[in-house]
Amino acid sequence: MPSTPCSPANHRCVDIHPARGSEDNDDLGSLRGWQSTDRATMLQQGGGVQATERRQKHHSRSFSRQISLESARMSREGRRSLPRSGKSLGGGAGVDGGLRKGDFSMFRTKSGLGVVATARKENESGPNNHAGEGGALHGARAEESRVSDSVPAGRYFAALRGPELDQVRDSEDILLPKDEVWPFLLRFPIGCFGICLGLGTQAILWGALASSSAMAFLHVSPAINLAIWLLALAAFVSVSVTYAFKCVFYFEAIRREYFHPVRVNFFFAPSIACMFLAIGAPPRMRPFFLHPAMWCVLIAPVILLELKIYGQWLSGGKRRLCKVANPSSHLSVVGNFVGAILAARVGWQEAGKFLWAVGLAHYLCVFVTLYQRLTTSEALPKELHPVYSMFIATPSAASIAWAAIYGEFDAVSRTFYFIALFLYCSLFVRINFFRGFKFSVAWWSYTFPMTTASLATIKYAEAVPTFFSKALALSLSLMSSTIVSLLLVSTLLHAFVWKSLFPNDLAIAITITKDRNGATKRSKAAKKSYDIKRWAMQSPLALVSSIRRGGSEQEELETN
Amino acid sequence: MPSTPCSPANHRCVDIHPARGSEDNDDLGSLRGWQSTDRATMLQQGGGVQATERRQKHHSRSFSRQISLESARMSREGRRSLPRSGKSLGGGAGVDGGLRKGDFSMFRTKSGLGVVATARKENESGPNNHAGEGGALHGARAEESRVSDSVPAGRYFAALRGPELDQVRDSEDILLPKDEVWPFLLRFPIGCFGICLGLGTQAILWGALASSSAMAFLHVSPAINLAIWLLALAAFVSVSVTYAFKCVFYFEAIRREYFHPVRVNFFFAPSIACMFLAIGAPPRMRPFFLHPAMWCVLIAPVILLELKIYGQWLSGGKRRLCKVANPSSHLSVVGNFVGAILAARVGWQEAGKFLWAVGLAHYLCVFVTLYQRLTTSEALPKELHPVYSMFIATPSAASIAWAAIYGEFDAVSRTFYFIALFLYCSLFVRINFFRGFKFSVAWWSYTFPMTTASLATIKYAEAVPTFFSKALALSLSLMSSTIVSLLLVSTLLHAFVWKSLFPNDLAIAITITKDRNGATKRSKAAKKSYDIKRWAMQSPLALVSSIRRGGSEQEELETN
Amino acid sequence: MPSTPCSPANHRCVDIHPARGSEDNDDLGSLRGWQSTDRATMLQQGGGVQATERRQKHHSRSFSRQISLESARMSREGRRSLPRSGKSLGGGAGVDGGLRKGDFSMFRTKSGLGVVATARKENESGPNNHAGEGGALHGARAEESRVSDSVPAGRYFAALRGPELDQVRDSEDILLPKDEVWPFLLRFPIGCFGICLGLGTQAILWGALASSSAMAFLHVSPAINLAIWLLALAAFVSVSVTYAFKCVFYFEAIRREYFHPVRVNFFFAPSIACMFLAIGAPPRMRPFFLHPAMWCVLIAPVILLELKIYGQWLSGGKRRLCKVANPSSHLSVVGNFVGAILAARVGWQEAGKFLWAVGLAHYLCVFVTLYQRLTTSEALPKELHPVYSMFIATPSAASIAWAAIYGEFDAVSRTFYFIALFLYCSLFVRINFFRGFKFSVAWWSYTFPMTTASLATIKYAEAVPTFFSKALALSLSLMSSTIVSLLLVSTLLHAFVWKSLFPNDLAIAITITKDRNGATKRSKAAKKSYDIKRWAMQSPLALVSSIRRGGSEQEELETN
Repeated sequence: MPSTPCSPANHRCVDIHPARGSEDNDDLGSLRGWQSTDRATMLQQGGGVQATERRQKHHSRSFSRQISLESARMSREGRRSLPRSGKSLGGGAGVDGGLRKGDFSMFRTKSGLGVVATARKENESGPNNHAGEGGALHGARAEESRVSDSVPAGRYFAALRGPELDQVRDSEDILLPKDEVWPFLLRFPIGCFGICLGLGTQAILWGALASSSAMAFLHVSPAINLAIWLLALAAFVSVSVTYAFKCVFYFEAIRREYFHPVRVNFFFAPSIACMFLAIGAPPRMRPFFLHPAMWCVLIAPVILLELKIYGQWLSGGKRRLCKVANPSSHLSVVGNFVGAILAARVGWQEAGKFLWAVGLAHYLCVFVTLYQRLTTSEALPKELHPVYSMFIATPSAASIAWAAIYGEFDAVSRTFYFIALFLYCSLFVRINFFRGFKFSVAWWSYTFPMTTASLATIKYAEAVPTFFSKALALSLSLMSSTIVSLLLVSTLLHAFVWKSLFPNDLAIAITITKDRNGATKRSKAAKKSYDIKRWAMQSPLALVSSIRRGGSEQEELETN
Repeated sequence: MPSTPCSPANHRCVDIHPARGSEDNDDLGSLRGWQSTDRATMLQQGGGVQATERRQKHHSRSFSRQISLESARMSREGRRSLPRSGKSLGGGAGVDGGLRKGDFSMFRTKSGLGVVATARKENESGPNNHAGEGGALHGARAEESRVSDSVPAGRYFAALRGPELDQVRDSEDILLPKDEVWPFLLRFPIGCFGICLGLGTQAILWGALASSSAMAFLHVSPAINLAIWLLALAAFVSVSVTYAFKCVFYFEAIRREYFHPVRVNFFFAPSIACMFLAIGAPPRMRPFFLHPAMWCVLIAPVILLELKIYGQWLSGGKRRLCKVANPSSHLSVVGNFVGAILAARVGWQEAGKFLWAVGLAHYLCVFVTLYQRLTTSEALPKELHPVYSMFIATPSAASIAWAAIYGEFDAVSRTFYFIALFLYCSLFVRINFFRGFKFSVAWWSYTFPMTTASLATIKYAEAVPTFFSKALALSLSLMSSTIVSLLLVSTLLHAFVWKSLFPNDLAIAITITKDRNGATKRSKAAKKSYDIKRWAMQSPLALVSSIRRGGSEQEELETN
Repeated sequence: MPSTPCSPANHRCVDIHPARGSEDNDDLGSLRGWQSTDRATMLQQGGGVQATERRQKHHSRSFSRQISLESARMSREGRRSLPRSGKSLGGGAGVDGGLRKGDFSMFRTKSGLGVVATARKENESGPNNHAGEGGALHGARAEESRVSDSVPAGRYFAALRGPELDQVRDSEDILLPKDEVWPFLLRFPIGCFGICLGLGTQAILWGALASSSAMAFLHVSPAINLAIWLLALAAFVSVSVTYAFKCVFYFEAIRREYFHPVRVNFFFAPSIACMFLAIGAPPRMRPFFLHPAMWCVLIAPVILLELKIYGQWLSGGKRRLCKVANPSSHLSVVGNFVGAILAARVGWQEAGKFLWAVGLAHYLCVFVTLYQRLTTSEALPKELHPVYSMFIATPSAASIAWAAIYGEFDAVSRTFYFIALFLYCSLFVRINFFRGFKFSVAWWSYTFPMTTASLATIKYAEAVPTFFSKALALSLSLMSSTIVSLLLVSTLLHAFVWKSLFPNDLAIAITITKDRNGATKRSKAAKKSYDIKRWAMQSPLALVSSIRRGGSEQEELETN
């Protein structure tokens, strides 16, 4: 409590973490062991040093790793010398070490918390627990909710930066250790489905190059389509299975990704990728993939997610479109158009028209909002970034979808196609497009717009078979294929040679309450409760609850 | 004057209201008597108690109701114990009781003020009026303008809350007494035309159910259409007549409603309701209602109001779209599409196309603005609310209008229809839609979008006569009819059993200047003028004018 | 340094401007002589008066005009008595007279600065230059960059006012003398191309009146078209040549115009005017003007500028659409539609569709943004202003373009046409439209929307040849012709009788850093550097660089 005038010697904080061994088996080879540690927090205000240490001795049964009296003392002393690390864990005055770094269990699926709760109760039922009880109970609850509470959108904007909101600001601390390699599943982001998007559209592209009348002069073999499609299928299966495991084991991490204003759009990616696979399926697979039932299965999650996300934009909560809009919001719109293409393929034109209309309405909103670059929109990249290629995806897909539904590449299709083409040019002329950015697996998502634009150009070349249109279709196709090839090589290198494909996914591990403000509020609350209660020797429950209130106050602040 | 350091004993305020009897006859049975009271305000700074009381005795000729020395003393004492009520009337230091609560005459049509002015002159010409004269004159003028000045849009947002901006914030006080039942006409809001909207569309719906080829399997009798249409006509006539009386007697209240950012959109409702009546007219009435002259008569107020309101959005003043946009803004757009439908019915396709284009342009703006939920838009409901059903109305009407003008339910019609359908789903899945809100007569306005969507679905089922489309049309029609029936019962219960259909319409009685800031400014101004003039024994005219200045400063603040 | 606590007597600033004669020849008759003066700034902190004056004497070799010790002393004394003029030149504490007013050379094309640099070096190599050297060098650099640095968009909004951002705020000072008539080329704004827009559309209008089947009853002679076209051609040639000269001699002024948020849109005007000339060319000129090569030449600058400007809106920097949007942004959109019309005329339908699509996408953004009147948009006129007529131009042009490309005045054309018509009405009913504003040459740009609307009405009257449509076409045509005639007379009067057509173009001469804030920052920086360095007797280089830092800080401030 560095900011309170009263001396810190009056306050003692002890972190007690009786850990059990890692009782969970790792299903995946790369999943390294993690430990589910219990958390108990004791806070004593105005008590004597002796009593504290006595209680410490009593409580400390099995300290597994770094959790020891030494660390507690270290952190206490560190707090004096390094103020920032002192408030780093969000615990503040005395609730400090509630959650040890490296405690990956907090992101585990909720059932794992049952064990923790049991262990905690056991712990609390011990003797001499009179003073620490309330605090421990409350502190543990606070931590639990600190992870599992839905993180407000503004919090992500405050704590993260970069166009993908994947880098933690310097002023922020995170819940997991930065210097340690996290479990593989925790490092496996939803953005990996971008690989499937990129490969799936490539499969469609090469299928179109092989079958399109306009590109017949190329004599592309359908085998390429088959090969890429199989590769895309394999990628989709492996990414899906891995993410399913993450779903099973680290559901809290997935909830964190879901609340992430950029990442949430990638939750559309699995369905869209699967729809790409269905659209690009080689001729022999088509009876299976191009069936209305398949369409229903694939479109259902898109519709549900749209009802949720568009509803958030429109009618409640803090996730207003003017705040959360960012180029990846296009992903939440493009699903409609891809679904419309698939609907046209399976023969449900009306369903396709429905999706197209829904897509149009929301594309309008997203397009205008992004073009305005409202000052309230905090996730907009300051510089040009690959994520801007998303702008190309939606009009291209809208153009193809309209042509697929209504049977001809008419004025509406052309209008959307030309919008896409202009945006393509607009990004293309900014030469240093892919330069100076660290490669990440999300880049794959930025390739599918180019491929979609190539596909739309092929459709346009079919409608207007001039030299110019064919040359454009060819060059765009080559460009997108080249970039996908480069990304494939780059990804393989990162994955198997440099082993750097999946860095720690810092974005999911941000604290819920901002440290800086939180600290101020906490110290105020502490001062207040100190002033009032210093004579009453009450349990510090009120203090903790005031901390929680401080957090909710801040959430409210973030709404405006 | 609680915030000034000088003791309140130095200041005396006296409220003198020599009231005349109620000289106006109540034309409507439910219109209870009200009293046009004169207002005179006296302010004496640094004067003695005796002098004040002497003047009080002199002036107090006929105290009609609550206006007495007792009340004045009570309010003076109340000001000490209850600071909020102390500044409640906006009069501040000594200008307190300028306007007695319950003085409904301030909302009367302007001609009524002539009488007041005469009475005031009479009052002022009395003896011993040396000190109070300037203050009384100025105070009365301030009050007069306090009512009749156009209330800035930001003021409504500041003083009111709720998605309909019909509840007064706790920090605000209003010009009329909260604990008293106001005259019926003052409690009769423009939103009552929503009843006509709801019933009018029901009449159209049952007409369509009876005549549509797609719904022929239902064998609906045209008599239902006739019955509902007659009911709608009766409702329209009675609401119109009542509101016309309000227009005649309480024009100031109507001006207040006109400046209300939500209510202003309901000024479109009379024309739209009448257009609904024309569109839904039973076959034998059609030659009269479906005549170009009728269209001209009905569309004229819509066009004029649009020129006014869209002009406000676009080109001047503080009523920027980004500020005043709220779901009821759809009402100001939907009139175009309804007018286009009627134009198509009367055979003026080009006029319909004109209206459709105007509607489209402004629908785009409203739709995008509402979807963005700009942080500057202050009237947006935080939670889902029936008012959101307005979102369905415009695209449904646009869809029907396009089909009516261009003769077929083509791609444009479908696009708008499907947008409406998606928005319907989006609102429908949020189950607790109609729950937890207090019933108000404005709810009627929220039923017509559903009925319009049902109508569009019937048109769609005509174009695409599948089982699914017919089932959808049927279920949507039933749902809208059910809700309208429920509302009808609820309205009758509120009107005749619980007598709570028309609560006091607090929204029109807000003060123009905000109390809190105003109070601060006033006390500053008071302190200043006190410091300067305490020895000069001047009339407090400057003080009052500084209050007015404070108000205008605040208005300027509200512009940004 | 009036805001620092230390007395100003400690600081001496001397402005030394050894000027050479005007060594440049004036190519244009109206180009009055200007002088390229060298600038040297000396700053001495804590030094004695005698030393300063000694240096002053030493340095002062040839004082050409107003630059003398007298003026330096005057400005020093003036700073004490007139605080605003004291900080007027942005130099702040001692860096005052870095740039003499009337020194028009700063806006010259860069090559001119070479001479200055040489002269400066010569100057710096003089004896006794030990203290002034660093300051002079740095000061001169700062001034140079003060002119040639790209002025941030926010700076224009901060320094200028009015819907055309052509008036300097009272709190601002400018780099050039207000009380002196500037060189003609510096007073020749890009807005002069508006004359070509107005005359070019008139030529098209009279051509359409002569040839349109709907207006055949007027029997307009094609000779009028020829006459106006030749007049428009003459105007275009003379304006172009004059502006080309400005380009050659005062390139810095043109850069200033380019960074101006309103003026930048007028950079589209030359191309658009030329396209108008091509579209309106009399029959015998058509083979030359309506050739694809001509289209390519004319559309190239439009496309390039669009890539630049739309890219700024979308993907980087501070020129967000939500900030810079203003009615003249329509000019940057309308080029697409005019280009589409020309493309249709030369037979390149697909190119026209491309341009139309690009125009539509950006028109949507501009239209919605302007209708919302976002609070972040600083250039929006508070009152109705002729600039609002721009709103009519784009939908009219879009309507004509669609009809030209797709061959018929169909639903899309009509929708856009009716939107334009409604906006026309909306502006027309606000009667005092052209009243109360000072005439400026930019008004010409506000006439072409009316003419375009007349043209669209003629097209509409061809499609729907009713009495009403023909009467509307006739009356709108007459109105636009009348206004253009009035403007022509007014322009001629201003140009040749009152000689007031080209007032000083204050907008280009604003300072880069805001004076008020800058002064605060400067004084803070000065205080800081004073506190630290007062004993070290360092050169004030750090101070100057801190001023520059202050400027950049402010630029950052302007980003949010």
